[in-house]
Amino acid sequence: MISVNPIGVVHNGIGKMSTGNWAQAESRIQIHEDMVPGLQGLADFSHAVVVFYLDRIPPFEKDTQLLRKPRGMEHLPPVGVFAQRTKFRPNPIGVTPVRLVSIKGNVLTVTGLDAMDGTPVLDVKPYIPEFDGIEKSKQADWVPAMLKGYF
Amino acid sequence: MISVNPIGVVHNGIGKMSTGNWAQAESRIQIHEDMVPGLQGLADFSHAVVVFYLDRIPPFEKDTQLLRKPRGMEHLPPVGVFAQRTKFRPNPIGVTPVRLVSIKGNVLTVTGLDAMDGTPVLDVKPYIPEFDGIEKSKQADWVPAMLKGYF
Repeated sequence: MISVNPIGVVHNGIGKMSTGNWAQAESRIQIHEDMVPGLQGLADFSHAVVVFYLDRIPPFEKDTQLLRKPRGMEHLPPVGVFAQRTKFRPNPIGVTPVRLVSIKGNVLTVTGLDAMDGTPVLDVKPYIPEFDGIEKSKQADWVPAMLKGYF
Repeated sequence: MISVNPIGVVHNGIGKMSTGNWAQAESRIQIHEDMVPGLQGLADFSHAVVVFYLDRIPPFEKDTQLLRKPRGMEHLPPVGVFAQRTKFRPNPIGVTPVRLVSIKGNVLTVTGLDAMDGTPVLDVKPYIPEFDGIEKSKQADWVPAMLKGYF
């Protein structure tokens, strides 16, 4: 077992899961005061990768959650949890690149973070295409339909 | 404090940190047997995002590690930990998109994973550009020099 400690918390007034339209969502990430020096230089980047812990997700149930149908894919066979982006995961860790709107003191204002109000943040990393992006990738045929309305 | 449990482990024979040339590195990720059904459908993707815990990193030291000079940037001012990709982080969680070479039973063979032998894996997610990629991003001027030899 591995222990981690939040370095901040999400504020966005979003109180329910699966809200959708996450691209529009504006969030404030409040970084713990003792970590604020760690933000120096982040404003030189347009985007950051936020690593967060989905703390409202119930404990993982292997019997029903290792294999399940992706969002809106009731007509297709079930897919493994590691082949889809469901939030019901053995370790519900979210990883989302967000746009940095502003940084003031200990508050990052960002758009595109798919996390509820109060979600603990574990890490913030600058988005660097060489680390984070894949130029050409192939995905499963069901992905485009699953994406509808998510962002 | 938040607890997470590894779902697998990295095997690649790489016994020291900061090896560099990570793009060439081939690793086998051994998924715990009870999680294997979760891999179903992953072969429909060319790439996956691996979330791992850098378990050989010493405890974070605020005094010296909140602000430090990025890799090879001794001539520049120090930069905050959340504005760079150093492995010495409050929560040393790695997030790396990798190429899926093969999936056989409980073993994923991947390239591009910047993790040492024995590193615990917390999650595997299919790489989906709409979730993971940013088309146009801006980064700090020091980034290109820092990247030399890393991949």
